[in-house]
Amino acid sequence: MIIVLKPGVAQESVDEILGLIASKDLKPLHMPGAERVVLGALGDERVLAELSLEGHPDVESVKPILQPYKLVSREIHPHDTVVKIGNVAVGGKEFCVVAGPCAVETPEQVRASADAVKAGGAHAIRAGAYKPRSSPYSFQGHGPDGLRLLAEVGREMGLPIVTEVMDVADVELVAEEADCLQIGARNMQNFGLLKAVGRTRRPILLKRGMAAKVEDLLLAAEYILAEGNEQVILCERGIRTFETATRNTLDLNAIPYIKQKTHLPVMVDPSHGTGVRDLVIPMALAAAACGADGILVEVHENPAKAWSDGAQSLYPEQFEQLMTRLKPVVKAVGRTLGPASAA
Amino acid sequence: MIIVLKPGVAQESVDEILGLIASKDLKPLHMPGAERVVLGALGDERVLAELSLEGHPDVESVKPILQPYKLVSREIHPHDTVVKIGNVAVGGKEFCVVAGPCAVETPEQVRASADAVKAGGAHAIRAGAYKPRSSPYSFQGHGPDGLRLLAEVGREMGLPIVTEVMDVADVELVAEEADCLQIGARNMQNFGLLKAVGRTRRPILLKRGMAAKVEDLLLAAEYILAEGNEQVILCERGIRTFETATRNTLDLNAIPYIKQKTHLPVMVDPSHGTGVRDLVIPMALAAAACGADGILVEVHENPAKAWSDGAQSLYPEQFEQLMTRLKPVVKAVGRTLGPASAA
Amino acid sequence: MIIVLKPGVAQESVDEILGLIASKDLKPLHMPGAERVVLGALGDERVLAELSLEGHPDVESVKPILQPYKLVSREIHPHDTVVKIGNVAVGGKEFCVVAGPCAVETPEQVRASADAVKAGGAHAIRAGAYKPRSSPYSFQGHGPDGLRLLAEVGREMGLPIVTEVMDVADVELVAEEADCLQIGARNMQNFGLLKAVGRTRRPILLKRGMAAKVEDLLLAAEYILAEGNEQVILCERGIRTFETATRNTLDLNAIPYIKQKTHLPVMVDPSHGTGVRDLVIPMALAAAACGADGILVEVHENPAKAWSDGAQSLYPEQFEQLMTRLKPVVKAVGRTLGPASAA
Amino acid sequence: MIIVLKPGVAQESVDEILGLIASKDLKPLHMPGAERVVLGALGDERVLAELSLEGHPDVESVKPILQPYKLVSREIHPHDTVVKIGNVAVGGKEFCVVAGPCAVETPEQVRASADAVKAGGAHAIRAGAYKPRSSPYSFQGHGPDGLRLLAEVGREMGLPIVTEVMDVADVELVAEEADCLQIGARNMQNFGLLKAVGRTRRPILLKRGMAAKVEDLLLAAEYILAEGNEQVILCERGIRTFETATRNTLDLNAIPYIKQKTHLPVMVDPSHGTGVRDLVIPMALAAAACGADGILVEVHENPAKAWSDGAQSLYPEQFEQLMTRLKPVVKAVGRTLGPASAA
Repeated sequence: MIIVLKPGVAQESVDEILGLIASKDLKPLHMPGAERVVLGALGDERVLAELSLEGHPDVESVKPILQPYKLVSREIHPHDTVVKIGNVAVGGKEFCVVAGPCAVETPEQVRASADAVKAGGAHAIRAGAYKPRSSPYSFQGHGPDGLRLLAEVGREMGLPIVTEVMDVADVELVAEEADCLQIGARNMQNFGLLKAVGRTRRPILLKRGMAAKVEDLLLAAEYILAEGNEQVILCERGIRTFETATRNTLDLNAIPYIKQKTHLPVMVDPSHGTGVRDLVIPMALAAAACGADGILVEVHENPAKAWSDGAQSLYPEQFEQLMTRLKPVVKAVGRTLGPASAA
Repeated sequence: MIIVLKPGVAQESVDEILGLIASKDLKPLHMPGAERVVLGALGDERVLAELSLEGHPDVESVKPILQPYKLVSREIHPHDTVVKIGNVAVGGKEFCVVAGPCAVETPEQVRASADAVKAGGAHAIRAGAYKPRSSPYSFQGHGPDGLRLLAEVGREMGLPIVTEVMDVADVELVAEEADCLQIGARNMQNFGLLKAVGRTRRPILLKRGMAAKVEDLLLAAEYILAEGNEQVILCERGIRTFETATRNTLDLNAIPYIKQKTHLPVMVDPSHGTGVRDLVIPMALAAAACGADGILVEVHENPAKAWSDGAQSLYPEQFEQLMTRLKPVVKAVGRTLGPASAA
Repeated sequence: MIIVLKPGVAQESVDEILGLIASKDLKPLHMPGAERVVLGALGDERVLAELSLEGHPDVESVKPILQPYKLVSREIHPHDTVVKIGNVAVGGKEFCVVAGPCAVETPEQVRASADAVKAGGAHAIRAGAYKPRSSPYSFQGHGPDGLRLLAEVGREMGLPIVTEVMDVADVELVAEEADCLQIGARNMQNFGLLKAVGRTRRPILLKRGMAAKVEDLLLAAEYILAEGNEQVILCERGIRTFETATRNTLDLNAIPYIKQKTHLPVMVDPSHGTGVRDLVIPMALAAAACGADGILVEVHENPAKAWSDGAQSLYPEQFEQLMTRLKPVVKAVGRTLGPASAA
Repeated sequence: MIIVLKPGVAQESVDEILGLIASKDLKPLHMPGAERVVLGALGDERVLAELSLEGHPDVESVKPILQPYKLVSREIHPHDTVVKIGNVAVGGKEFCVVAGPCAVETPEQVRASADAVKAGGAHAIRAGAYKPRSSPYSFQGHGPDGLRLLAEVGREMGLPIVTEVMDVADVELVAEEADCLQIGARNMQNFGLLKAVGRTRRPILLKRGMAAKVEDLLLAAEYILAEGNEQVILCERGIRTFETATRNTLDLNAIPYIKQKTHLPVMVDPSHGTGVRDLVIPMALAAAACGADGILVEVHENPAKAWSDGAQSLYPEQFEQLMTRLKPVVKAVGRTLGPASAA
């Protein structure tokens, strides 16, 4: 329920109502605004009805929350949330570009790739130290050593780092080293992991699962917010369909739909969303045009030698071309694509 | 097979080789270029091998056509085809906007909708006189009367018309009245209909089926070209997936993929591709950004009263807003969005 | 609307009410039962409301038809419809097996395949003279000659024939020669064709489209029944999903669902439903177990040399094995699998 | 690689070759058979090639493992694996029925449901103490208390228990209390969890993910076997498609396909596979007919009051009816459905 208070209600009255909500074992929310205070109550709405808050002298109106998700909904939080990855703002006027190789392979490869994305104008670097792989015989990532290497390179370059965490046991370490924790598509409904990252105070990049409806994605984000972490960025990365020309079907419909339903920022991953290098640039432009807050793109110093995802990784010169072509499109939709430092 | 002739080969030698191909019951293709002539031979490649054209003194090389589609392939036709709908060019530098109501309902509605799309800057008008409807109890269109009304309004307004044909028996009449014949998604593999429109000399707008892979779409176009009609525009209009937030999942990956594989122009229908009015503008912008040659968009003078597809039709003022927002995006990708007359 | 009359109502009262319905341009239905007469009225229910039939002295009750399909619905036709293909009943106690090659290739091949399916115990033979093929360069069928050959062999063998019709122009000829007209998956929403076969008095085998929801299939059948042909057999043949191990995903959930919603019989095509020869027998058994009224299965005298669909066609000895293994499963679910003559 | 030794090779030669494989950092497998010994080597096949084992005097042949999965493949393990859940064998001649409520709700509900499934003839009981729920506001299960309650009831009734584990941290406790650990569809690619259950010595029931290809499922099982636990049962429980009449689309094609590719047993969950109570019995029969080794079915003492999945849970009398109807189908395919004690 959303409880809109009358203008100018005293703090003690606010506290009283929050207390009433809590007394019924509902979760109270306090959302003070410029003109008036809005309260929320999460839980069994029949229980709340017993309080008859509509009749309370300081309450203007009581409205149900129509969506199954609550904290992520624009209904109770109408303004855009801006998430900070290091010093990079995601969800504001600036369009955000996070780029880097699929995996941390070697110190040379990480440095060369970081050089390339920095030179191209990326705002942050991505690379995986923990790799979810369909086969147990594929390269599984370097783990903690890879993580520390990535963090070190990020610091040297002044690039915030985004990296995946796959296991609850690793959350603490990754939260220490990384500026933003990625939850991969396969773990979108790994609820224990969602709760664990919800208890950190790091931004979370939450990727949509391959068979997840947008509503499922928003509910997965709700798990994180419900633990107290409101720094969540959603990410569309392609869904599974019958089409085999591309690795996945990038569902850009989801971008304007998500922006309507939630205040959280949303990014697009055109690399996994297509699986085909030549399609990455046009789909990055499309993502910017339909309102995404940024992109996550795979760039490798030498994709032909990449240990994973080579077929969808951009060459450094292609990344430069992407940034050059992205700038006018971003501007055409009223946003900016500045240098990393200004992001 | 693609047979590349040596530079400066005499016409009689060209004719001789074409005759050899035809003598084996293969379909010969003549593709003269600026510097040299390229020939094609469609049919059983083992039969062609018997001719041993590699050994012919005027032949430079013989290459297999790797794709299952031939005439639509960029392999044998590397340059973009530009299709003319009336005086409107599709597939060139100009981005093309075809707009109008789902169906021809009444003279007043067609005129008012035509006024709206003309005022907004559309290059051509679309509306259905023959309507494919899932239920036999839904409005099935006004048929020939609707068609003639639409044609009349188009002429009055100076707007070329695009309208659907569903049955072989109607092809002749529709080809007489309309500037471009649309094949709907449900008929993409109605091969008799494809052949019939292939025998007209009108441009064809071929929509992708709901479960069609891009390769199926290209093969469907091949049916039309194989009958001698090369004026084909492809159209992405959303595919069926598990996502229920939108009516279909608009597969924009298909746009750059199609542009790679074929020389034919490709448009996007963000109205059917989303099924949700509020998502139409952002997805139209995305279509322009990723390289589509134009859009097909539903606009109704009063969507709340539309006899079909009201939920996805734009209000006239929204169409104006679409055109205003489209212009800078089109420009950002190096194309133009001019007034109807200049198209 | 369903209008249930009181017991013992006189025929003239029935006629009067049917006349009232028709006077409002609604389609009247007359469904006399053992105890009482039930009438139907199809069309705009608001118009019907003006008649206020609830108040008529001979009317017991007026109920809305809840489903979007009417004539195919069990709501207005609770008992199973039995369709006769020649002398073979589909939809009764007997489980029906229709078998044969994908296409009519040569007289020898048709005869040898017919021998094989007859020997194995099939009740009817299937083969295509008109072939819908994704590519215009694939074998398109022998057309009328193939049709006549198939009909001749069917008569010689005493096997009713089931064959596809793709074009409205061919309906008359196919209806003359064949015992049952098949509408293929690609034409499930070719509404002109549905109407044309609805005007014949031949049984129709209607295959589910690759992206058709069961509701779409039932509405497609409604088109046929609305033209006066109630002899419709539905056929599940696999839908398109992300799974690539099989050609399609056979949706057997649809069988018991369809049996609940409609009185029409339903068959299963495990050949197209899997696309893999080794999966055909187990899926045929599954189809029988979950309540299908029969199967449609591809059998070729020599699949390795089949001009189409060889990979999913059974060898004659596999078809015998199928029939042997099918018999106890059919019996286990309370039905019978008799010799062709007894079918 | 699969290395087939010559008949009668001495143990020391076997050990020598296993040592050679290990010396190259490949994983050696020892598969002694009745007539001859087969060895396996998992890892980079180029490295293995350096050993030139084809030339070794005791080696008969060296064959590549064609599938991306190895230990689960029938190529290196041709005979069916039989997994024991308590005293219940899965994968042998006996068809196995695991039944019970979606969740452990109350002691009374667990006891009543256990009574019902025991009376009906189930071989084991299933219920969830840890519940993966799309929304954080849905009932999340009673956790350890629920687990212990279920275990207690199972022991009282003599029914082995199958229950889900969602987090690595809970694996030890669940492995202590439960006879079989279920990995749910959402966790099919939670690789840390797969490895953790792979280190237990309990049987694992691995459910297919909603967007997982069968190959992905087999690779997920490979993760468990690669840790040393070969007691894995696969489970088809429906995939996500465009069809909305049912909660999921049960992919029974997968059953015979899986039986071809792997030696592991496979079960079917018709409750989640349909989401509709009335479809559960027919799909259970279909599962048995196409070769599944058993079913997992939701039964609740009072589905109308179930805290979750009520719409797909059978009433006790429906479960009895299921077992009655299942028996002849199981027999028709050459298997048995005995009393729990004989399983």
